[in-house]
Amino acid sequence: MTYPYPQLNPPPFRWMARNTTEPKVHEWIRTIDPEQAAEYDWSQVDVTIVGIPLSRSSISASAASENPEAMRQAWKSFVPYSIDEDVDLTPLHVVDVGDVRQHVTDIPYCHRQIKEAMISMRRTHPHALPIMLGGDHSVTAMLVKGWKEAHPEQRIGLLQFDTHFDLRSVVELGPANGTPVRQLIESGTVRGEDVWNIGLHGYFNALSLKKYADEHGVNYVTLKKARQQGLQATLQEALADLERKVDVIYLTVDMDVLDMADAPGAPAATPGGMRTDELFELVLQAGQHDKVQAMDIVCLDPHKDVRQVTVKAGVYVMLTFLTGFMLRKQHNRI
Amino acid sequence: MTYPYPQLNPPPFRWMARNTTEPKVHEWIRTIDPEQAAEYDWSQVDVTIVGIPLSRSSISASAASENPEAMRQAWKSFVPYSIDEDVDLTPLHVVDVGDVRQHVTDIPYCHRQIKEAMISMRRTHPHALPIMLGGDHSVTAMLVKGWKEAHPEQRIGLLQFDTHFDLRSVVELGPANGTPVRQLIESGTVRGEDVWNIGLHGYFNALSLKKYADEHGVNYVTLKKARQQGLQATLQEALADLERKVDVIYLTVDMDVLDMADAPGAPAATPGGMRTDELFELVLQAGQHDKVQAMDIVCLDPHKDVRQVTVKAGVYVMLTFLTGFMLRKQHNRI
Amino acid sequence: MTYPYPQLNPPPFRWMARNTTEPKVHEWIRTIDPEQAAEYDWSQVDVTIVGIPLSRSSISASAASENPEAMRQAWKSFVPYSIDEDVDLTPLHVVDVGDVRQHVTDIPYCHRQIKEAMISMRRTHPHALPIMLGGDHSVTAMLVKGWKEAHPEQRIGLLQFDTHFDLRSVVELGPANGTPVRQLIESGTVRGEDVWNIGLHGYFNALSLKKYADEHGVNYVTLKKARQQGLQATLQEALADLERKVDVIYLTVDMDVLDMADAPGAPAATPGGMRTDELFELVLQAGQHDKVQAMDIVCLDPHKDVRQVTVKAGVYVMLTFLTGFMLRKQHNRI
Amino acid sequence: MTYPYPQLNPPPFRWMARNTTEPKVHEWIRTIDPEQAAEYDWSQVDVTIVGIPLSRSSISASAASENPEAMRQAWKSFVPYSIDEDVDLTPLHVVDVGDVRQHVTDIPYCHRQIKEAMISMRRTHPHALPIMLGGDHSVTAMLVKGWKEAHPEQRIGLLQFDTHFDLRSVVELGPANGTPVRQLIESGTVRGEDVWNIGLHGYFNALSLKKYADEHGVNYVTLKKARQQGLQATLQEALADLERKVDVIYLTVDMDVLDMADAPGAPAATPGGMRTDELFELVLQAGQHDKVQAMDIVCLDPHKDVRQVTVKAGVYVMLTFLTGFMLRKQHNRI
Amino acid sequence: MTYPYPQLNPPPFRWMARNTTEPKVHEWIRTIDPEQAAEYDWSQVDVTIVGIPLSRSSISASAASENPEAMRQAWKSFVPYSIDEDVDLTPLHVVDVGDVRQHVTDIPYCHRQIKEAMISMRRTHPHALPIMLGGDHSVTAMLVKGWKEAHPEQRIGLLQFDTHFDLRSVVELGPANGTPVRQLIESGTVRGEDVWNIGLHGYFNALSLKKYADEHGVNYVTLKKARQQGLQATLQEALADLERKVDVIYLTVDMDVLDMADAPGAPAATPGGMRTDELFELVLQAGQHDKVQAMDIVCLDPHKDVRQVTVKAGVYVMLTFLTGFMLRKQHNRI
Amino acid sequence: MTYPYPQLNPPPFRWMARNTTEPKVHEWIRTIDPEQAAEYDWSQVDVTIVGIPLSRSSISASAASENPEAMRQAWKSFVPYSIDEDVDLTPLHVVDVGDVRQHVTDIPYCHRQIKEAMISMRRTHPHALPIMLGGDHSVTAMLVKGWKEAHPEQRIGLLQFDTHFDLRSVVELGPANGTPVRQLIESGTVRGEDVWNIGLHGYFNALSLKKYADEHGVNYVTLKKARQQGLQATLQEALADLERKVDVIYLTVDMDVLDMADAPGAPAATPGGMRTDELFELVLQAGQHDKVQAMDIVCLDPHKDVRQVTVKAGVYVMLTFLTGFMLRKQHNRI
Repeated sequence: MTYPYPQLNPPPFRWMARNTTEPKVHEWIRTIDPEQAAEYDWSQVDVTIVGIPLSRSSISASAASENPEAMRQAWKSFVPYSIDEDVDLTPLHVVDVGDVRQHVTDIPYCHRQIKEAMISMRRTHPHALPIMLGGDHSVTAMLVKGWKEAHPEQRIGLLQFDTHFDLRSVVELGPANGTPVRQLIESGTVRGEDVWNIGLHGYFNALSLKKYADEHGVNYVTLKKARQQGLQATLQEALADLERKVDVIYLTVDMDVLDMADAPGAPAATPGGMRTDELFELVLQAGQHDKVQAMDIVCLDPHKDVRQVTVKAGVYVMLTFLTGFMLRKQHNRI
Repeated sequence: MTYPYPQLNPPPFRWMARNTTEPKVHEWIRTIDPEQAAEYDWSQVDVTIVGIPLSRSSISASAASENPEAMRQAWKSFVPYSIDEDVDLTPLHVVDVGDVRQHVTDIPYCHRQIKEAMISMRRTHPHALPIMLGGDHSVTAMLVKGWKEAHPEQRIGLLQFDTHFDLRSVVELGPANGTPVRQLIESGTVRGEDVWNIGLHGYFNALSLKKYADEHGVNYVTLKKARQQGLQATLQEALADLERKVDVIYLTVDMDVLDMADAPGAPAATPGGMRTDELFELVLQAGQHDKVQAMDIVCLDPHKDVRQVTVKAGVYVMLTFLTGFMLRKQHNRI
Repeated sequence: MTYPYPQLNPPPFRWMARNTTEPKVHEWIRTIDPEQAAEYDWSQVDVTIVGIPLSRSSISASAASENPEAMRQAWKSFVPYSIDEDVDLTPLHVVDVGDVRQHVTDIPYCHRQIKEAMISMRRTHPHALPIMLGGDHSVTAMLVKGWKEAHPEQRIGLLQFDTHFDLRSVVELGPANGTPVRQLIESGTVRGEDVWNIGLHGYFNALSLKKYADEHGVNYVTLKKARQQGLQATLQEALADLERKVDVIYLTVDMDVLDMADAPGAPAATPGGMRTDELFELVLQAGQHDKVQAMDIVCLDPHKDVRQVTVKAGVYVMLTFLTGFMLRKQHNRI
Repeated sequence: MTYPYPQLNPPPFRWMARNTTEPKVHEWIRTIDPEQAAEYDWSQVDVTIVGIPLSRSSISASAASENPEAMRQAWKSFVPYSIDEDVDLTPLHVVDVGDVRQHVTDIPYCHRQIKEAMISMRRTHPHALPIMLGGDHSVTAMLVKGWKEAHPEQRIGLLQFDTHFDLRSVVELGPANGTPVRQLIESGTVRGEDVWNIGLHGYFNALSLKKYADEHGVNYVTLKKARQQGLQATLQEALADLERKVDVIYLTVDMDVLDMADAPGAPAATPGGMRTDELFELVLQAGQHDKVQAMDIVCLDPHKDVRQVTVKAGVYVMLTFLTGFMLRKQHNRI
Repeated sequence: MTYPYPQLNPPPFRWMARNTTEPKVHEWIRTIDPEQAAEYDWSQVDVTIVGIPLSRSSISASAASENPEAMRQAWKSFVPYSIDEDVDLTPLHVVDVGDVRQHVTDIPYCHRQIKEAMISMRRTHPHALPIMLGGDHSVTAMLVKGWKEAHPEQRIGLLQFDTHFDLRSVVELGPANGTPVRQLIESGTVRGEDVWNIGLHGYFNALSLKKYADEHGVNYVTLKKARQQGLQATLQEALADLERKVDVIYLTVDMDVLDMADAPGAPAATPGGMRTDELFELVLQAGQHDKVQAMDIVCLDPHKDVRQVTVKAGVYVMLTFLTGFMLRKQHNRI
Repeated sequence: MTYPYPQLNPPPFRWMARNTTEPKVHEWIRTIDPEQAAEYDWSQVDVTIVGIPLSRSSISASAASENPEAMRQAWKSFVPYSIDEDVDLTPLHVVDVGDVRQHVTDIPYCHRQIKEAMISMRRTHPHALPIMLGGDHSVTAMLVKGWKEAHPEQRIGLLQFDTHFDLRSVVELGPANGTPVRQLIESGTVRGEDVWNIGLHGYFNALSLKKYADEHGVNYVTLKKARQQGLQATLQEALADLERKVDVIYLTVDMDVLDMADAPGAPAATPGGMRTDELFELVLQAGQHDKVQAMDIVCLDPHKDVRQVTVKAGVYVMLTFLTGFMLRKQHNRI
């Protein structure tokens, strides 16, 4: 019998795609079944991507748990080439290792798993830079704690792009999405002075949080002030300060730093926030810094999005960070 | 080195799914890569599913081309068990063979490929019942022509659930979604008297089309009349008439037969249409008839849908037909 | 110079339309510029359609003022032939006379103009049946008052399909959309006993309104009771009662009588309401009754609609009424 | 100084409301500040309403936690009089006691509080019928357990209107919204034979759950079968069976029993489900039965709703139940 | 009996809120029942807020009448602390006095009541700065006239942020939302030269209106020109000019000055408009000027909003103005 | 008989409009019925507008075919006066000649008609500047080819504002919306060096397309670079370069050059794109250049729009170009 279906394709490989020699993002990023992870040759991996589908720890009802899958679907329409920077990403070896296992009703279990995931990644392939797709902002506390447990000798700096301090009371809320930075400070994982938060604005941070930040030496620059002194200059000041003090910088991007008109799918985004092009430029610069060794993207709820604009901005943030990382690699190679 | 990611999964296999011993619909239906289709053992296959992502032949702008993928995503939340009929579908061997290759600007090529796909399916595994996920209604003409070419000796009946006659002028519109039944009659593929259309209603069929139908002996029952005499009785009359005359019955379900409130994603659906439960009952009965050997679902535009209600109705139609088919098999075994 | 644009059309006459010999609804209904109305030969006109773009008299903020234009746009996709009744509407001579002039801030002026419009229509072409496209329900009081002024000798019955009594206090609200029936009763235009309201249901009419209805002999049948005794039987009872008592029956269709799932664009529609096919059947029967001499469609807000389902239902109501009217004419001719 | 603001109102009492002598639902239901609850005279209270803003225990991301507040806002447009049954609800003394305290990240605490709330209500005013506004379906397990702890001598029956069995594995999911009935059976709170589930349909219950139901004697009637034998007859059979066996019947209404077109805000609702008027009729009958002593409404996510149709249906369910309860009281008084 | 509900709260005071010592905006702003207004000690009040739920005077159908309630609901998620300016608003004594009574069909009555409300506020507590939440722009004419009647000796300047002149013909439209500035000029309440309009742009002002503005000496700066010379410099020029000439400056913010992408809920907003951060900066500066003694926010229709972005921008405008006012008070104290 | 309808208007001429002496855009632009085009005096026509309702040649499902009609409806709310530039457009004689005839299933026919339309326009009234309202971007290839056929002696430059190169393979896709610039280069209609594309950004152009552009000398400036060197300076450089080389410049505006938040109705728009005010400024400048002799607006899908923001931006682009054109005429007159 001859080949029976000369004219049929599996869903992802239609006629058009077949004639294309260049990959889309989902054809460039490799996916690994966890069951085969033990056999995989991790030595050449540059970057790992992992989804963290947890948002039941959100203060407000959120479907940020659906973000990893939404971003994966969305990046099928992106290509791994930045026309702005003339950077081809395909030389990077990027692996999507899937999602951290979560539980329906056991939030402490979820949080432990997230921490364990980071520990496992750091131990199995410490040379690979991890990118975490949240989930709500509570995951950041667990991820940084996991890093600290894997590298107890390292002093960790936190670079945060956010509308909020995320310094609310752990006693009151537990390990919720309003408390991760406070959890890290109070657990001794990160020092207050090693936190830099850029992008705060408006009427969404209580006065007591500002006082807490001051008391613990947390560095922060409001969006207004950052625009006045230049967003890039502000970031360079933050990076220079952290560079002197810490061994590794963890970048956390809370999508609600964006203006609500640009990011309707970030439920806590507000009017007057950061524009997408401003955020992309910050992330590009951060990606180029040698000490930035991990990044997460959090608080993006695709169920609240309008025509996918926020999910696409999330993908853009990830690819822009990788563009910065690629420039860093090219620079270091010289 | 031990297994590195005890807590990580690939996206589709999270913790919850892992502990489930029963499949969801997407875990029960098998998918075949066309490149491996030649090696597949087709002898045990009961049903094949194929997507036809074509809607640029629609009179009105349509994204029905996106329906096959939308239905595949949606059926991940269905299980292959009908509580209404107490029928387990998992004994059925169902294979999703992917999509028919289509072209961006060459509509005649698209239509030829659709016809070739049906011919290939009929020749490779004639015992397997094909289910086609459109696409707009123009695909039906090509699929039935393909069947006729594969089985020239068979007299084919068309059972149509539709708000429209689909008898508009081919001279005027070409092979568009308003003309498939006329194409079949004028090409001699199907006789007018072998067409039964149930569900017409309202102010959406010009008088000339009604006259054409009468002149060519097309059988049709308006929704109002069908409700008066009983939808089931109407269907049984149609099946009885076709059973006497034809060798095989092709069932085409145009989702616009549904009431617009039930099917906002069927662009041509209107107020006062068929209710979903009425359609499901019709499809269940049709699925049980031995001579019904093929089915398509057309004119479902997921971009116009509201909260996926129409796409889910489309999946429901497919599963209900398979439930009828399973009852048929059980009955024939006795 | 020869004809310069062999391939260009004015917007409404594209290639497809050009080859069609049968009209769509907008090609069948004639539109008259008021400035040329005086020269028009009204003797053969069967039906006039007039829009009443007023909703600033609504209790709740409403854009029902946009309904006449929305319905006119929507009926471009309907044909003037009922497949259900096998009735061709094109022999009817129907004229769209435009909109009643309204003012931005002078509601009494608006109401006076509405009344004057009815008087003018009754005096200029009393043989033509007028169909009014609201606008909110306050317009009905003015239209019926206009009829009464034009025909003071006639006893007028009001046949109302509505979720509400519309009997709220004129003292409190003025001539708002909650008070038209009370205005008509209190002004002596229509007797309470000559009102029949079918379709009331749920928790949207205060007890005092029910008492008012009882005290004034208003006839009403809840949707639940009407369904129990048959919607058609209920209507026939109402028509029989009115037929004995009145000279002319004015039919007012408040779209909020419909279930909210079927009519999201009727702001006061609610769950558990009438289904579109039920309403269409009632309107068809009413259209056949000789004494039904006018109809309005009110409280349809296209800005709140979902995928035009309510606007299309409004068009369907109008065409179904005309189908009944055509059947009446055919019957009377015999 | 004289009264300074003759023309100003507090927001809820505008000019229109001021002149109305009859209350809207929110003016009839009294609200009690918990801090003053100890002083309240509970002896005359007929019904208590309590909100349970918990949905972080949902399998899928849900904002059912927002439902109590959404229903409270929505019922401001309803009046406490049923035109269908000619029943005035205002003689009923109904108190809204607020929401059960919940925690952001401690789900076991949330569940304990829900149970404690029921115990407290049963002990403080056992003569008052409680209505609980969920929240997701996990709350039902806690509420029934609370009742059992307050009344250990009572045998409790569960009357469930639902698309799903809610019998999924507690071992796998914990006390999630897919497991409440199983929790109640496995904890010995309710016997399988004392559960009646009406409304199951489609492809949303795995075969194993049907087997579990059969093994534990759970009574269930699919929507299709219930329609065939009459919904009312089905309910009467269920009530008659429970009446013989149990002391008290707890009614739980999962809004996803409704057709998705009628209830887009019930995330798990599906095509082919129950119509709102069918559900309202069932609830009215259940409300009239003496042994039905508690009711909850669950799985209504206002963030997914379309133009509030589902939230309004939820309010309608509550008021219809109270109408049945009023009829029961009137009947018992005779 | 002991306290019966240790675990229950009234709706607005759930567990989280209970442990918070800092107020949200709605807990800081006090609300006064008009019936108790006569007893209130107004001597310490800094600011009053009043809603004006009128939009039936809009040229286009509008639900701006719903804005006061929408803003009140929305500000529950804001805190009274500006992180940008490091300004705590809680020392300000702000009172929400409710809504001005309006009528359903009597627009002149509505407008008189609005004027009377302003007169009453000026006479009862002339030291308190009033903030008015519209409503459509017609309310501004009445409010400024009321001020003039209360303070006939004062020369009033109008500072307007708007896309439109609002100078359309009163003869044609009456006191509609397109005419307030013309009403004020023609009634002699405000001189043309005392009006400064910043933000005009695009193709939305007829040439005749521009000529009218020129003839009457109205000052205006298009958005394009304002951006070229600096928005702040433009505002300072306007304030300096007005400061020299008038006794008091009334600030009116028409939300349609914003770009339509930033303010979808301002029906007349357009592409290419002002960005939210630009508007906030203007309002902050205006709030600091001693002569700015009143502000309104108009033409915000929450029914047209997308995910509340415009309503939130409205709240932001109000809080930003209050931040400026607080800075003014701090500055004056020194 | 006297004039019968003193108070009635045809739909477009209500009371308000009647009293206005100044036109809206739709009252200023004249529409010509193709059947009367031969008799029209074209000698004074400055600009022609023609719609091209084709989008079945789009790679992704698109309703850009509905754009011409959507823009025509939308411009009814614009006036032909630019407040920013103080330019009155009414002296321009602008004619809307309708739509190019298209076919439902014959894409090559559609494309030929588009080319013929341009040839006809160039031959009949070569002095009139044509503005084409797409449709997808495939129409640009046909329009420019038509121009070339009518003026074979002219060297044509292409000024493109676009996120994409539109240089994809014609062999693979045919004359689709991803290939027009490549079609023009490969057919010899336009030289690569005569193309200037401004606005490319992000991850949406494959590396191979960039290489193709480089190999064929296509000029392009990314949005980031253009912002760094000034958008106006970039445009002036492009115009200066083209001015030296070509006889005529064809301007093509792909609406997806805009940021997705500003243009949700441009399906391929993305985060980080051009702001509307940036685009309007570019178009204004281009409109002033003598050699810019034609413009099209493409890839605007009104079915995907949010509250018409993109359609309105499209109208704004057209009017802004005409404002530039008017300034050019004024300048040339001096």
